[in-house]
Amino acid sequence: MSNTSLRHLEQLIASKWEHILEQPQALQFASSLMGKDRRVYAIYLTQVYHYAFHTPRNQALVAVNPQNTDIHYMQFCLEHALEETGHELMALHDLRSMGLKFNDPHTEMPPALPPTQLLIAYLYRIAQQGNPVQRLGYSFWAETSYGYIREFMDDLGRNMQLDKKQMTFFYNHSVIDDKHAKDVEKILLHVCKTEADWEAVGNSAMITLELTFQILRAVVDEYEKLVREEPSDFLIMNSLERVQDFAAHD
Amino acid sequence: MSNTSLRHLEQLIASKWEHILEQPQALQFASSLMGKDRRVYAIYLTQVYHYAFHTPRNQALVAVNPQNTDIHYMQFCLEHALEETGHELMALHDLRSMGLKFNDPHTEMPPALPPTQLLIAYLYRIAQQGNPVQRLGYSFWAETSYGYIREFMDDLGRNMQLDKKQMTFFYNHSVIDDKHAKDVEKILLHVCKTEADWEAVGNSAMITLELTFQILRAVVDEYEKLVREEPSDFLIMNSLERVQDFAAHD
Amino acid sequence: MSNTSLRHLEQLIASKWEHILEQPQALQFASSLMGKDRRVYAIYLTQVYHYAFHTPRNQALVAVNPQNTDIHYMQFCLEHALEETGHELMALHDLRSMGLKFNDPHTEMPPALPPTQLLIAYLYRIAQQGNPVQRLGYSFWAETSYGYIREFMDDLGRNMQLDKKQMTFFYNHSVIDDKHAKDVEKILLHVCKTEADWEAVGNSAMITLELTFQILRAVVDEYEKLVREEPSDFLIMNSLERVQDFAAHD
Amino acid sequence: MSNTSLRHLEQLIASKWEHILEQPQALQFASSLMGKDRRVYAIYLTQVYHYAFHTPRNQALVAVNPQNTDIHYMQFCLEHALEETGHELMALHDLRSMGLKFNDPHTEMPPALPPTQLLIAYLYRIAQQGNPVQRLGYSFWAETSYGYIREFMDDLGRNMQLDKKQMTFFYNHSVIDDKHAKDVEKILLHVCKTEADWEAVGNSAMITLELTFQILRAVVDEYEKLVREEPSDFLIMNSLERVQDFAAHD
Repeated sequence: MSNTSLRHLEQLIASKWEHILEQPQALQFASSLMGKDRRVYAIYLTQVYHYAFHTPRNQALVAVNPQNTDIHYMQFCLEHALEETGHELMALHDLRSMGLKFNDPHTEMPPALPPTQLLIAYLYRIAQQGNPVQRLGYSFWAETSYGYIREFMDDLGRNMQLDKKQMTFFYNHSVIDDKHAKDVEKILLHVCKTEADWEAVGNSAMITLELTFQILRAVVDEYEKLVREEPSDFLIMNSLERVQDFAAHD
Repeated sequence: MSNTSLRHLEQLIASKWEHILEQPQALQFASSLMGKDRRVYAIYLTQVYHYAFHTPRNQALVAVNPQNTDIHYMQFCLEHALEETGHELMALHDLRSMGLKFNDPHTEMPPALPPTQLLIAYLYRIAQQGNPVQRLGYSFWAETSYGYIREFMDDLGRNMQLDKKQMTFFYNHSVIDDKHAKDVEKILLHVCKTEADWEAVGNSAMITLELTFQILRAVVDEYEKLVREEPSDFLIMNSLERVQDFAAHD
Repeated sequence: MSNTSLRHLEQLIASKWEHILEQPQALQFASSLMGKDRRVYAIYLTQVYHYAFHTPRNQALVAVNPQNTDIHYMQFCLEHALEETGHELMALHDLRSMGLKFNDPHTEMPPALPPTQLLIAYLYRIAQQGNPVQRLGYSFWAETSYGYIREFMDDLGRNMQLDKKQMTFFYNHSVIDDKHAKDVEKILLHVCKTEADWEAVGNSAMITLELTFQILRAVVDEYEKLVREEPSDFLIMNSLERVQDFAAHD
Repeated sequence: MSNTSLRHLEQLIASKWEHILEQPQALQFASSLMGKDRRVYAIYLTQVYHYAFHTPRNQALVAVNPQNTDIHYMQFCLEHALEETGHELMALHDLRSMGLKFNDPHTEMPPALPPTQLLIAYLYRIAQQGNPVQRLGYSFWAETSYGYIREFMDDLGRNMQLDKKQMTFFYNHSVIDDKHAKDVEKILLHVCKTEADWEAVGNSAMITLELTFQILRAVVDEYEKLVREEPSDFLIMNSLERVQDFAAHD
């Protein structure tokens, strides 16, 4: 059953990605990003900063969930929590590399947008309560997402004239995650023993992938507010030198 | 500042309601509900059952939040948790009154849909972490929502030929909540001391009202799956006698 | 079985009290208290302040324990949490009535002694994890303890020339607890359904009663440090006017 | 300040050990252990099983404590949690090596005694709440305790004719802990920045070392009940072959 269930999970995620990439908002996001305005990328990084801060924490909580009594799964959770500790600092580094100043990022970082708040809340909830396999639904698609977005990120970097040191979060994760993806697959096959386990994983994969898409939408919305010069929690982004400004110096 | 802030919060909520009620999906929901097919109402009650189970629990957690050291606010949280304990049984009662059978509701109830899961997760998160005033954003609009939906529920009851004993959750809450609404206003004015407090309340009000709308959308989606006879976690609803069936007997 | 189990629990507690009251340290505590030095009573009140702060919080957590799905027991927990909210302020009031000054009790109160810390930690643990009936073991003996200590407190008040307004914590609780004791008995008979339930209650009753005795011992130890003029976290108590000082003015 | 504070902490622990080792109960424990009756050792291992099950869990929680925002300390917590995962199985292995049968250790293991319950509760509490450095007080003395007990354990093994495979928990830890002790010292010097931090560490060191001594006392008490053939939760230990039985075969 296991391998069939794994293939089924992969298809579920693939068709969700396909669905997302067809959405007008996704195209709009892509074309915004594809433009030369780094503000939309920077807003996105602020959201990465927020959820990445919580990722190792809620990952570690799965090891503490009293329903988790599988030694291997506990070890998986702690190892991955360990590897992901401090990754919010990569997002911070990238923001700073683009020229943004943060003396105390903890207080000065623009806020987590609603879907980012929901992603964080949901991951803590499923880490602490209920079937501890659930959180693997998030890990599974997250670690395999680079297949879907690497080309996109390469284009983005080129268009925005970002160099690698302004994209450390993405490039580091794309390397780490090739290894992680194998680990997640292995542990999924180890811990999912029933149909209900696979369903729980599929459910959380769908919810968290949808929320990630909602984060992209919310980022575009905030970007458009900046363009329209409306009140915003992200005014700091206007201090970013625009790509065209660089170009003007050429 | 306080009264201005309260008025501002009311306007925020009013304009969010207005926005929601304009959405095509809301109209679709209304017209689905306004029809004679009780299944859509029953699906909705299953979601009420799920979140109402958690409402007193996450409400009580606000009293336990170590950042909550205000005696009056602790008392408010515990009193309201107490009053809301067991209200999921009203939703269960209403489902049973329509003829659905549940031997063990805990295992037989159809599942919480994704936005219902997110609402539950979010309420636990804001109850336990961060500014303890936050959860009042949910209480505030929830307790005053009857102004927006009472007429609607009256119409719905008439169209679906539901009698009051099949709508106990709503009618009981509309009575309870008139009193609660005053309490929430009073405690809001007591605990919100800074601009940041009011913003935290506004933020959680917007997020939870949006999620409630997403629950309605998800209910309609599930209902349409039943209509299209697609696979569904809500097949049990097909055992409901339809209003038209009653009519046919007339 | 239930009534037999309840009688058995009462005997367990009675013989634990008897054992405690026979301990040399208990007699020493009694004779210290029976003297005229209010410092030992004031040190004890600081410990009451600490655990009373946490009592409604850990009591409320029992209602939130996912294993607690009994509506009546949830209501019991929330009602009692509600009634006990803010009772640390009675201990604070009594300390102030004796002439101690606290601008910010949260930071200025002498620390919780080790057994007080353990009592607090243990009550949080059994509130959140495992069989939710457990915490009733604490409630049961605590609410019925006034039979064992009222006469003692009366003597103490007389010897130390304390008036009722310096003993509000005790006298208020002795009144409240007559009602509570009946409630606890009733809910115990309602929720304890198995031998394991009664054992869990007996276990937590024994542990918490022992810790309470350890708190008394630790209070006497701290008092003796003051008498011997050793370093102490309770030096503030030396500012208390001694009963003999009053007498000297007569 | 740091190195002075560290030396002070070491002295505090050393004098606590000295005090413990002078207690009549400690000598009694030693002489019980030094005898040939393996039951006392086996009872002790049941308690190790219980607390070792929780050690990585409460250690990991320190990384999740919202007050812990130090990346290095988070990594320390997760690494140590990872290394200690599953160590309860060493205690189980040792019990089985002596001939005890457990089909399902989770349900068949004799219960955690009161001080074991308190140690577990206390470690969860300080992991989740308050100054996150606190838990290092436990790690610090625990990782350096082999200096105090290695000779003792060697004697014990010889007297009870235990071979190394019946003492895996101890011998594995004595090796692991030499490395850990250095790590703990390093992280202590990194995270303790104030007098209050060092005091918090000293406080938890004293409390947990005392509880560990109380566990030894409780083990001896349970052993003596077996000797006196009183009712006991540890009757399973009577199935252990006695050392003298082996000797009789020589």
